[in-house]
Amino acid sequence: MDLNSDLGESYGAWQMGDDAAMLEIVTSANIACGFHAGDPSGILRTVKAAAARGVCIGAHVGYPDRVGFGRRAMQIAPDDLTADVIYQIGALQGLARAAGTSVRYVKPHGALYNAIAHDLAQADAVIAAIRAVDPTLALMALAGSPLVAHARAAGVSVICEAFADRAYQADGQLVSRSKAGAVLHDAEEIAARMLAMARDGSITAITGERITIEAQSICIHGDSPDAVAIARQVAATLRGGGIALQSFCRDHSE
Amino acid sequence: MDLNSDLGESYGAWQMGDDAAMLEIVTSANIACGFHAGDPSGILRTVKAAAARGVCIGAHVGYPDRVGFGRRAMQIAPDDLTADVIYQIGALQGLARAAGTSVRYVKPHGALYNAIAHDLAQADAVIAAIRAVDPTLALMALAGSPLVAHARAAGVSVICEAFADRAYQADGQLVSRSKAGAVLHDAEEIAARMLAMARDGSITAITGERITIEAQSICIHGDSPDAVAIARQVAATLRGGGIALQSFCRDHSE
Amino acid sequence: MDLNSDLGESYGAWQMGDDAAMLEIVTSANIACGFHAGDPSGILRTVKAAAARGVCIGAHVGYPDRVGFGRRAMQIAPDDLTADVIYQIGALQGLARAAGTSVRYVKPHGALYNAIAHDLAQADAVIAAIRAVDPTLALMALAGSPLVAHARAAGVSVICEAFADRAYQADGQLVSRSKAGAVLHDAEEIAARMLAMARDGSITAITGERITIEAQSICIHGDSPDAVAIARQVAATLRGGGIALQSFCRDHSE
Amino acid sequence: MDLNSDLGESYGAWQMGDDAAMLEIVTSANIACGFHAGDPSGILRTVKAAAARGVCIGAHVGYPDRVGFGRRAMQIAPDDLTADVIYQIGALQGLARAAGTSVRYVKPHGALYNAIAHDLAQADAVIAAIRAVDPTLALMALAGSPLVAHARAAGVSVICEAFADRAYQADGQLVSRSKAGAVLHDAEEIAARMLAMARDGSITAITGERITIEAQSICIHGDSPDAVAIARQVAATLRGGGIALQSFCRDHSE
Repeated sequence: MDLNSDLGESYGAWQMGDDAAMLEIVTSANIACGFHAGDPSGILRTVKAAAARGVCIGAHVGYPDRVGFGRRAMQIAPDDLTADVIYQIGALQGLARAAGTSVRYVKPHGALYNAIAHDLAQADAVIAAIRAVDPTLALMALAGSPLVAHARAAGVSVICEAFADRAYQADGQLVSRSKAGAVLHDAEEIAARMLAMARDGSITAITGERITIEAQSICIHGDSPDAVAIARQVAATLRGGGIALQSFCRDHSE
Repeated sequence: MDLNSDLGESYGAWQMGDDAAMLEIVTSANIACGFHAGDPSGILRTVKAAAARGVCIGAHVGYPDRVGFGRRAMQIAPDDLTADVIYQIGALQGLARAAGTSVRYVKPHGALYNAIAHDLAQADAVIAAIRAVDPTLALMALAGSPLVAHARAAGVSVICEAFADRAYQADGQLVSRSKAGAVLHDAEEIAARMLAMARDGSITAITGERITIEAQSICIHGDSPDAVAIARQVAATLRGGGIALQSFCRDHSE
Repeated sequence: MDLNSDLGESYGAWQMGDDAAMLEIVTSANIACGFHAGDPSGILRTVKAAAARGVCIGAHVGYPDRVGFGRRAMQIAPDDLTADVIYQIGALQGLARAAGTSVRYVKPHGALYNAIAHDLAQADAVIAAIRAVDPTLALMALAGSPLVAHARAAGVSVICEAFADRAYQADGQLVSRSKAGAVLHDAEEIAARMLAMARDGSITAITGERITIEAQSICIHGDSPDAVAIARQVAATLRGGGIALQSFCRDHSE
Repeated sequence: MDLNSDLGESYGAWQMGDDAAMLEIVTSANIACGFHAGDPSGILRTVKAAAARGVCIGAHVGYPDRVGFGRRAMQIAPDDLTADVIYQIGALQGLARAAGTSVRYVKPHGALYNAIAHDLAQADAVIAAIRAVDPTLALMALAGSPLVAHARAAGVSVICEAFADRAYQADGQLVSRSKAGAVLHDAEEIAARMLAMARDGSITAITGERITIEAQSICIHGDSPDAVAIARQVAATLRGGGIALQSFCRDHSE
């Protein structure tokens, strides 16, 4: 099982998250590319730290909306979105080369992530970017979303991810953040859910049903106050339960 | 002889220059990378047009100062400057790959160009970026400036450029734009000066002396009202005088 | 009748429109406030030029999306939108004071204009901004849109505007730009339509019906190639037809 | 004696400092205006909180360099700098009006603060902005700098400030941050120095001399880890020593 987290999200004088601590835990790092977060110097520091620890690097591409942290829906024309995504991937690839490593996957961020999970026209713009800049890049996508099959049909390899701290509906969708119980906070409960999912590919929905979920990676948020503690608990519980933690990158390149 | 011009400088709804016309004339395109000018979608259009015409592509990297068009001196810490340059080169490399071509050289823009021509500490930050992201990239530099030997000593190949529409001092430096006669406007005079320089490696200084100038490329500005007409005149006069126009890229890769 | 146009839309080194020429024609200037277009120095120049000609000044507030020119829909939380609008109005008020004049109205731009014409929840955020920063500011709104009555009910005075170069549906709405015939290009036809509207408050819909339209102002676009010529024709035709051109500002303050 | 601190420096999702805690302590708030830090929504929250506590509000204007936090020297043409400062003051005035309060002074930030302390040509651009937008605004300036007399001669009232946590040279200048001992960290020592200065207008230089310093305000940095604790100590020590803490605003308006 792979553990991923959003890193490189500081911006100039503003810090966000504890990249050094998270890089001791996760096996894949979704690194901001400068549009919704991240400045070149800070991104490079995080990329170097990830490379030093053998953590797999992905391009966390977002909308050009820094003040909104890429969390606000934007109606961007597909051609412009494709170019925005290529630009961000290329910039991170440049910084990764400078750090002696390489970008292995793409994970859209925030409102863009939400948009493409279901809006396949928008998704096509992201897929076109991946295919244009480097077709060997994988796309990290929401497990159970229509995007998974759609991207695979377009020839892009997909890594499905589950969210460690989020409740699921019986239909496999995430419970909206606007609803009670959508976000889990108890580290032990979160870790136990993830261990069970890693073992048998299922998770308990908020309404009690046991549902199937195909996930090769678990996303652990990096910017909440308890992020590091929860990440440590999940990693320890998975390892203690006999689940090896390693990036999907290893399958492809090493 | 190579002819280069600054392209890709439009930004969103704002147009600058006539990239399509200039790409019919020049052999190398210094393409803005998004910091002082250029947005991903517009840059990609220009890169595709350059690729279609076989024009060599360079990264026109600048300070992060869009409203000042990268023309204002900024005291950026060397590590931050290195990361800024890597980021911009990488972004353009990504867009170039998407267009089926590649970036072959780096030309700093505006205030950054002026800074590194003489400030070798700042220059080292740019050189470090080139060496980190792709050591085969050439650096386009002001003919006769201390940067030329400095970059070569650091192992970076250098393309020296002369400015078609600028007057030179007897010591080989450009006459400051703040002085009368610094910028030439007569297309025929400009073209004749460049033909003479291409033939014998010398140019007439503003004070009348004939001075030596080593230049493998001639820079033609793309954003003045007469830019296209001057560029056409220079190209026609050089060709008419028996000077072949071709990019230095050909020497390396084709 | 008032004639308004979008001005102050240059940005740094990038020019847009011909503010000096348009200020000879229009009676009200919608001036960009720096979010979708305009930089402080350029805005100040346009504000000074407008003040010198006695042209009424309005704040052309937009989404924080410069690369998209404020033309892309953005889901901004109402409180954030209110603060964004206050900030822009305040900035323009500061520049107007420095030019010895004052801001008299607010006209949302682009995607924000479209959003609030029908989305009254978003409209409330703009209305809240006006009421918070200066309740005497008028709101310039699309004639016939639900926003007109909504803003008036909230205590904000409204200036209804018609679009000189746009076709109208029989229900009084603008024909979508995506449809054939949506934008008119013939200066004489445009001018004749506006004269007829100014005389009897009606306009011919694209389907031939004569429809009623309440408009105190006519919007003339400033950034098309023919903008100045169309504006001159409309002004001349209106004056020739006995319609006085003067800003609504005069009604309130002079 | 007045206590001032830099507030409103968060940006979108990025937090900086603890504005609520500092507003319980200081009597004047230098509030970021969006160029080097601050977004409209966050600025408005801080302005409202300052208004609720009766804290005097100043415009903390900076260079247009968010990623560099306004700390990097920039060569901005005086006219552009004047417009930039007017824009920022105006924007904050708008937000202040919306919060039922008003801007009373201007304090340049970071590299701009350093530039104008000695470069009187740059200083003139800031003074021109103040005089153009609101001549009753005071300028907060480094005690002992040439700017103080220069601004007063230009008709702008000046508030001189001392820096609580900085060492001084025997000539009254700040010890450069690059030198050992430039920044003090011991809250009790800092507080004792400020009490002595408040009582007799003098301070001990790093070389031991007792030097005179005219200061109506003490600047306490808000973004260091110990900022709140140091601020509390300084306030308590001053009050305990019989020094009343109140803003200079009261002198003018209440």
